[in-house]
Amino acid sequence: MPSPVLKLARATEPAWVEAATANLELVLLDHAHCEKKAAGAALRLLFQYPQHGFLQRPIAELAREELLHFERVLGLLEARKIDYRSLSPALYGARLQAEVRREEPRRAIDQLLVAGLIEARSCERMKLLAEAIAEPALSEFYSGLLAAEARHHRLYVELAGQLAGPDGVAPRLEELAAREATFFGDPAAPVRFHS
Amino acid sequence: MPSPVLKLARATEPAWVEAATANLELVLLDHAHCEKKAAGAALRLLFQYPQHGFLQRPIAELAREELLHFERVLGLLEARKIDYRSLSPALYGARLQAEVRREEPRRAIDQLLVAGLIEARSCERMKLLAEAIAEPALSEFYSGLLAAEARHHRLYVELAGQLAGPDGVAPRLEELAAREATFFGDPAAPVRFHS
Repeated sequence: MPSPVLKLARATEPAWVEAATANLELVLLDHAHCEKKAAGAALRLLFQYPQHGFLQRPIAELAREELLHFERVLGLLEARKIDYRSLSPALYGARLQAEVRREEPRRAIDQLLVAGLIEARSCERMKLLAEAIAEPALSEFYSGLLAAEARHHRLYVELAGQLAGPDGVAPRLEELAAREATFFGDPAAPVRFHS
Repeated sequence: MPSPVLKLARATEPAWVEAATANLELVLLDHAHCEKKAAGAALRLLFQYPQHGFLQRPIAELAREELLHFERVLGLLEARKIDYRSLSPALYGARLQAEVRREEPRRAIDQLLVAGLIEARSCERMKLLAEAIAEPALSEFYSGLLAAEARHHRLYVELAGQLAGPDGVAPRLEELAAREATFFGDPAAPVRFHS
């Protein structure tokens, strides 16, 4: 089982770690896109919810950190002479988005919880990568990101709690985490950070 | 005439400075939205042009700085007990966007130049505000932002130059600046950072 702090319903399979370490360049490139998408999703929340002033500053800060990570991954790609380019995304993000309920305030709550789950899964996988990658610099890069991912996870869950109340958040987070756990393991899917 | 460094075709009228200083709370709130929109526009460029790797890192850095400014303006609003809320935008941004040519690479070039012009106008107006605002803390806040705005202006123009060549950029920037200069001064428009 993954750390209960992260609220994930199921641990990543060893097969993903094997595939990811065997395709590190691809995972690194996808990671760059993931950081950019995380910043984009955070900004979308800021534009969607001007009426929720309490979200604005913490999510803007989080978006800045995602952008900084994006820039750092771009630096790693550059150092490895991997050209930055488009990549077909994992279906993970779209499948999670499809779980978001339509009516407010549930929509806002679900979007925050979905963002929080993505951070949790990223954190779990970065830890696995940090442990599995032989190259010290890259292994240290991933272990250096863990704390931020866990912090982002907690922030999103806390902000959802401000809209739903802490008692309202826990059962919904559990439901979403149960769904999230089913979005992996398609052997036909290309290797991605969230495949 | 405004500083030729900023490539603006026409200086802001004293009437705007008078209206803005008489409506500082409104201008400050609109300024928050402008910083957020600047970050959003920067991110959109990152998503639109993955094939232009050279844009990614500098524009991500710029977006981080816009977000930091957004957070700082939110702090000023909070200190003044001004609630963050939606505000009808000035037509300025939409009118500038309407000048963007549709076909690539002109579309990319124009989007970069339009972003550069917005930075230039913001820089010019922040200088005017810094000079006109009596309250030292707020005046210093605006004079502290000038250098970043001017740097962002130069960055966008330089990046456009990498797509169009420096000889291709100057005449188009002049055309856009001539259009930009006509988007102000509607006495019926509400007071905004770019009204």
